[in-house]
Amino acid sequence: MTIKVAVAGASGYAGGEILRLLVGHPAYAAGELTIGALAAASSAGTPVGELMPHLMPLADRIIEPTSVDVLAGHDVVFLGLPHGHSAEIAQQLGPDVLVVDCAADFRLASADDWETFYGSPHAGSWPYGIPEMPGHREQLRGTKRVAVPGCFPTGATLSLLPAVAHGLIDPDISIVSVTGVSGGGKKASVGLLGSETMGSLKAYNTAGKHRHNPEIIQNLKEYTDKDVSVSFTPVLAPLPRGILTTATAPLTPGVSAADLRATYEDFYADESFVAVLPEGQQPQTQNVVGSNMCQVQVEVDAAAGKMLATSTIDNLTKGTAGAAVQCMNLALGFPEDAGLPRLGVAP
Amino acid sequence: MTIKVAVAGASGYAGGEILRLLVGHPAYAAGELTIGALAAASSAGTPVGELMPHLMPLADRIIEPTSVDVLAGHDVVFLGLPHGHSAEIAQQLGPDVLVVDCAADFRLASADDWETFYGSPHAGSWPYGIPEMPGHREQLRGTKRVAVPGCFPTGATLSLLPAVAHGLIDPDISIVSVTGVSGGGKKASVGLLGSETMGSLKAYNTAGKHRHNPEIIQNLKEYTDKDVSVSFTPVLAPLPRGILTTATAPLTPGVSAADLRATYEDFYADESFVAVLPEGQQPQTQNVVGSNMCQVQVEVDAAAGKMLATSTIDNLTKGTAGAAVQCMNLALGFPEDAGLPRLGVAP
Amino acid sequence: MTIKVAVAGASGYAGGEILRLLVGHPAYAAGELTIGALAAASSAGTPVGELMPHLMPLADRIIEPTSVDVLAGHDVVFLGLPHGHSAEIAQQLGPDVLVVDCAADFRLASADDWETFYGSPHAGSWPYGIPEMPGHREQLRGTKRVAVPGCFPTGATLSLLPAVAHGLIDPDISIVSVTGVSGGGKKASVGLLGSETMGSLKAYNTAGKHRHNPEIIQNLKEYTDKDVSVSFTPVLAPLPRGILTTATAPLTPGVSAADLRATYEDFYADESFVAVLPEGQQPQTQNVVGSNMCQVQVEVDAAAGKMLATSTIDNLTKGTAGAAVQCMNLALGFPEDAGLPRLGVAP
Amino acid sequence: MTIKVAVAGASGYAGGEILRLLVGHPAYAAGELTIGALAAASSAGTPVGELMPHLMPLADRIIEPTSVDVLAGHDVVFLGLPHGHSAEIAQQLGPDVLVVDCAADFRLASADDWETFYGSPHAGSWPYGIPEMPGHREQLRGTKRVAVPGCFPTGATLSLLPAVAHGLIDPDISIVSVTGVSGGGKKASVGLLGSETMGSLKAYNTAGKHRHNPEIIQNLKEYTDKDVSVSFTPVLAPLPRGILTTATAPLTPGVSAADLRATYEDFYADESFVAVLPEGQQPQTQNVVGSNMCQVQVEVDAAAGKMLATSTIDNLTKGTAGAAVQCMNLALGFPEDAGLPRLGVAP
Repeated sequence: MTIKVAVAGASGYAGGEILRLLVGHPAYAAGELTIGALAAASSAGTPVGELMPHLMPLADRIIEPTSVDVLAGHDVVFLGLPHGHSAEIAQQLGPDVLVVDCAADFRLASADDWETFYGSPHAGSWPYGIPEMPGHREQLRGTKRVAVPGCFPTGATLSLLPAVAHGLIDPDISIVSVTGVSGGGKKASVGLLGSETMGSLKAYNTAGKHRHNPEIIQNLKEYTDKDVSVSFTPVLAPLPRGILTTATAPLTPGVSAADLRATYEDFYADESFVAVLPEGQQPQTQNVVGSNMCQVQVEVDAAAGKMLATSTIDNLTKGTAGAAVQCMNLALGFPEDAGLPRLGVAP
Repeated sequence: MTIKVAVAGASGYAGGEILRLLVGHPAYAAGELTIGALAAASSAGTPVGELMPHLMPLADRIIEPTSVDVLAGHDVVFLGLPHGHSAEIAQQLGPDVLVVDCAADFRLASADDWETFYGSPHAGSWPYGIPEMPGHREQLRGTKRVAVPGCFPTGATLSLLPAVAHGLIDPDISIVSVTGVSGGGKKASVGLLGSETMGSLKAYNTAGKHRHNPEIIQNLKEYTDKDVSVSFTPVLAPLPRGILTTATAPLTPGVSAADLRATYEDFYADESFVAVLPEGQQPQTQNVVGSNMCQVQVEVDAAAGKMLATSTIDNLTKGTAGAAVQCMNLALGFPEDAGLPRLGVAP
Repeated sequence: MTIKVAVAGASGYAGGEILRLLVGHPAYAAGELTIGALAAASSAGTPVGELMPHLMPLADRIIEPTSVDVLAGHDVVFLGLPHGHSAEIAQQLGPDVLVVDCAADFRLASADDWETFYGSPHAGSWPYGIPEMPGHREQLRGTKRVAVPGCFPTGATLSLLPAVAHGLIDPDISIVSVTGVSGGGKKASVGLLGSETMGSLKAYNTAGKHRHNPEIIQNLKEYTDKDVSVSFTPVLAPLPRGILTTATAPLTPGVSAADLRATYEDFYADESFVAVLPEGQQPQTQNVVGSNMCQVQVEVDAAAGKMLATSTIDNLTKGTAGAAVQCMNLALGFPEDAGLPRLGVAP
Repeated sequence: MTIKVAVAGASGYAGGEILRLLVGHPAYAAGELTIGALAAASSAGTPVGELMPHLMPLADRIIEPTSVDVLAGHDVVFLGLPHGHSAEIAQQLGPDVLVVDCAADFRLASADDWETFYGSPHAGSWPYGIPEMPGHREQLRGTKRVAVPGCFPTGATLSLLPAVAHGLIDPDISIVSVTGVSGGGKKASVGLLGSETMGSLKAYNTAGKHRHNPEIIQNLKEYTDKDVSVSFTPVLAPLPRGILTTATAPLTPGVSAADLRATYEDFYADESFVAVLPEGQQPQTQNVVGSNMCQVQVEVDAAAGKMLATSTIDNLTKGTAGAAVQCMNLALGFPEDAGLPRLGVAP
């Protein structure tokens, strides 16, 4: 049987990265997975080669309009659309189609949180696509619906989860996540111009205003009975891809650096895409560019009584499209790591 | 009378920036200040134009070896040397020469802190060059010795001082400072190669290991009776100049965003080089590049119960050479802002 | 008498850079030059501090709509508008107002060239603002109209002029100019997003299509009787500011490297803003960032029988706003270099 | 049978990229190709994970000293050493080992050229590793020695070859190649520091001084009887990876843009790794990052009477390590494109 895949929002950065990964997927090479409709509202009618000249093998494919008609008849539909469109499309595609949603629509379980941060009615929640969160891999196997996580929540969750789940910190957490500019998407905008972002640094959506804030809290709360407080500060930095997350929280008294390290190493021992780095080595974003890896480090700041956890991901790969393909693999029964690079393109 | 100035470490980034500012100083234009010896161990004999082709008017000047003989006979000596050399040079220059030390040697009052972080005997402490710290401007006026602050402590102190001094936060602080690469200096190093730093982000000297950590704590402690705890995480980002500091700390109960803003605006009302930005506007490093400005923002994260303060400086200007010149101005009785740009070179 | 200056297109990069230079102009400090209306169509009503937070002293000024009413009543009006608007505004402002036009409208003497490259009726030509072109300084002194040159023509002309004017090359020239992204202006555009420009290089408007092509030819033709042919290739590179021009042409038989060097040094001996670098030293854009300098090098490639001339400018300063202020100085009788930095902000 | 591969110079950028490609090679996955000794003089004893943290699957491998003892016993040895070491090592490894040399030692056929540009005795020449040069693929099949081309010659040759070979231009060529900084290698150097290269552009080894100059000429001369003259100007730009080559030359009278396009498309019709882009689309380096592709465009500049050819490659992949693996594939009888990505990692 051949699995036919469509991508909506194909001309955006998430869509382009999904296509890059699909073309490298062994099932694509084997003819078991084919790439069907590529849809994108604003660029319908344009060849892929003009919009995304790096996708050589798809250069002659023409972008179609985003509609249920175009997306129907596929086994898998990736949605890389602005927030608010996924529910209706998913419903019309029917329950037998695997819908992998890169938007936020089905990430939050709390309708209150959704309405506070997104200002529209809550559509519900779907199996949440961080397989490394205990219990989630099982929900993703065979599912027909996936809510792909936000890029910041992925970096923050993977760097903090072992400490939170094992009670090694008081979850009163300060997170600063420094991100490359592709996280802002491929839409014309003065604030994201090269002139405004090269040679500059800027915090934005600060002090609880970022929509990924409740998603981070939701993820961590799942593994602790304590109150979880997250001060989250995203910072825009001059690089195309990559997120460096730094997270501090009060260390539980009596916990040593060795305890932390052992817990983290044990927690991720069986994971293909999370690497706890050796002591003394800080993760660097260039080492995960284009890969689905998350590199993690954890330390004790004894004088401050704090844990420092850091992590790096590629926001477009493990932060979005890689997670989407990883979840597709689980949903369809492919090997979880099929088509997902573990080696970054450095330097 | 003409004031004659020498610069040791003239071929490094701090030295070059001091020279850039001196050439633009009105006293230089008026012939009241002249640039004498330019010294640098490794590049002695080389013309300035070859080492620092941006310093057009000094292009034909030849770098001399760093020695007391070379530096003697000047009214002002800027030291941009590696740590550990300033004490001996200053002593030999004598008490009548204004010595402005850009190294760390005389920043820390605590001999214990010095020995812990620098591993050598403590040389003492000199008037500390952040005039915006209440009480310091008075110490700097007419002084013959200045300890120029570290770049991270400048950004951290200016963003936190009003809140600490007025008891608006519990000083259990998490600071993440994202810096451009010129902070690493102008010495050959694989880790600071363009290939390793462009397109990448990395935390370093984490978890209490950075030498600026005790300096930040010292500065804040001066204005509070409470214990001050600082978790400090420096992050290297791909830009030449600029530091963005983000600082979070538990808000004192009952303090409002309006209280914070009023306190900050009042605190810096008479300062030429600190600007509290309007509500809703985050500082961006490009706006202070090449200038002596520090732009500050302060907010309340109500859900997390935290204050978020952010600031931007140019690490080479307000973070080093600008502060050095500002202190020279105070020491010599020039207008404090003479020769110090307030407008950044953006974009 | 106080000279009152207005800027139209004040919120663009050219406008912002003009304002940065005017605030640093000694006549501004002395109260002899004041900054009046700041106009910009799309951002009327917005404070300068929100649009250009680096312009600290003007932060509270409000942008006004672009209209003759707003611009009237000033002694000097800088126009930083899209092509095609200058003629009508200039006419309405009247012949006594100094109009300094940063658009292309009055650069080309040939109506044919204008119509071919800009596709609209030719408005005429004004004194052309490269004072370093022999004869032009005289035309600019006391003028009421200035056509500020394009950024590429400035770099190309200054690097080639001595060789062309003295017959040292056959003017069959290949020029490649690598530029920072601010040359593309401050308007929302997918192609100029940070994600599309960081980490990437791209030629554009190639093979004779760039509008600066006829302007370069016009400048060079003024100083030779030979046919001038220019193959011009602009390349977009990941930096905010700066143009590096490389130009090759067949060397006139018998001309030596020493002849070239002597000619260039002699040609620019009295110029404040053009520096011929010492033998063996290539210009680097960082050394002219924020300054009005052009750094030049010239060499012989004996095996290829070619001259190679290279130059660097800051496209926003000497390439646009610095030239505009330099011409204003000439027009008003200020010292030509007043308010124009010669020291770049490096690194 | 299992093929055992060693890499000398494993900790440099070429060595690291060869390893990245080998780990992704299908023969490696299938166990038919194993990675044996990893050698590097300066970092012997260090784990790969510390030096190149992106090479996850090899993280625990230890770098060995570079010696014939270490390299002996392998079927394939990649040499990524400084120039001058390859001849002796190859001789000692014996004629049955496939030696793929990424240094320049065996690239030039002319002993005179070698001695002029490298200043040491000529070691000879080996089959030259651009399979896309007519006749070369045949020489590379089954060979035991490969001279991997320089990165600039690869970009220049592929952009010019069809025009030269078909007499569509007079080969009096001006080439400007703008390169990312990884071309400078992974050795400590002030000139390649992030502070010196970010935000800056600089030509270097200009006017016939670059060692790749004779290699470009040699490649083109192979396909024409005319004299070949190349003015070659390399430019350093602020990006880690990528070369954009622009090349102009006088168009042969009567040749049209359609002739050029048809010739180029025909010339590369069967090539996996060279793509002639559609009319109107300029190649952009980000689209080939991490891939073995060369994207090419060719145009007529009618007014100047010139052809303009442009191309992009990743200097570390098609420019070095990708070519090395492509040649290994030909030498060993693997499919030529095995393990070589055709999709760049954009943006």
